[in-house]
Amino acid sequence: MVVGNEPSGKVYLVGAGPGAVDLLTLRAEKCLRVADVILYDYLANPQALEFAAPQAETVCLGSHRRHGDGGGKMWTQAEINARIVAEARAGKTVVRLKGGDPAVFARTAEEVEALIAAGIEFEIVPGVTAALAAGSYAGIPPTHRDLASAVALVTGHEQDGKADSAIDWQALAVFPGTLVVYMGVTTAKQWTSALLE
Amino acid sequence: MVVGNEPSGKVYLVGAGPGAVDLLTLRAEKCLRVADVILYDYLANPQALEFAAPQAETVCLGSHRRHGDGGGKMWTQAEINARIVAEARAGKTVVRLKGGDPAVFARTAEEVEALIAAGIEFEIVPGVTAALAAGSYAGIPPTHRDLASAVALVTGHEQDGKADSAIDWQALAVFPGTLVVYMGVTTAKQWTSALLE
Repeated sequence: MVVGNEPSGKVYLVGAGPGAVDLLTLRAEKCLRVADVILYDYLANPQALEFAAPQAETVCLGSHRRHGDGGGKMWTQAEINARIVAEARAGKTVVRLKGGDPAVFARTAEEVEALIAAGIEFEIVPGVTAALAAGSYAGIPPTHRDLASAVALVTGHEQDGKADSAIDWQALAVFPGTLVVYMGVTTAKQWTSALLE
Repeated sequence: MVVGNEPSGKVYLVGAGPGAVDLLTLRAEKCLRVADVILYDYLANPQALEFAAPQAETVCLGSHRRHGDGGGKMWTQAEINARIVAEARAGKTVVRLKGGDPAVFARTAEEVEALIAAGIEFEIVPGVTAALAAGSYAGIPPTHRDLASAVALVTGHEQDGKADSAIDWQALAVFPGTLVVYMGVTTAKQWTSALLE
């Protein structure tokens, strides 16, 4: 440790699971308990913040709906990256809480790249991803030994400003298994047409 | 409640997550604590059994490697279904603990069908699936906003006795995203050739 140069805090990129707070993992709960700062997506269940220490700072990174605490204004990815890095450089233990699983359509790669560039230690804490849980809630697993030997998770929401979908819906139309589209509500008309073609 | 006809116990089909015991969900832990009987796959981390009540019965459903407790003999799916149903009919709270997520290549559909046929109440408790967690451990999320808008989970291990693969590897070869093969070690030669063709 260099004097006058405090080591950076560690950043945990944590999956909050599909919604119900008891579908957090034990590791996620522990991370929330030790965090100095929790930067959370509006998609993560705010009840998860009840695990936070009383002195922890919690910051909502914006939402389409308002529920206080920064809600209403969506942070850009650059703003999020900058805040994570700044908090870690101040020596804080940072939890970046994301809905579902950080590995699935959660822009984790971009945050990881920012952390690597800044030389900050991080860990990804996997969570239960929404699509697979949704089937389970309904009692219908998306794979089946006789009927579905594969399942694909696809994003229905690509980067804003993309004129055309970069996704090859034609290739997906022949996918030999269950197809699950994330964040596909607003674009349902486009991708259902593309699949049917 | 009919006198002389005790109600069946409830069955929880629980995902144990990708390995580390602290990647169990809070709900999974609670299920393990209240279970009278735990029927577990050898793929589930046996450390998870430490949450079981002292009087709970734990039954390993067989393994390729031996670690006591029934290890060495693989139960058939019919035997597993029969045991789950019998325990529930005896009024027991049953946890069927599976590695990863019950929704992904875990033969959950077959157990669900048996439970429905027997009129037994059940709940699926989702877990963190192995493939997505593996990428996260390595710091490499399997989706990327610029590079991978989809991820597919495919089984490399179909039903024993199937002469030909029912999986359309040609369709998977054009899949527009990350491809993850579960249980693919012993069949790697076949499916890599099929994909390259």
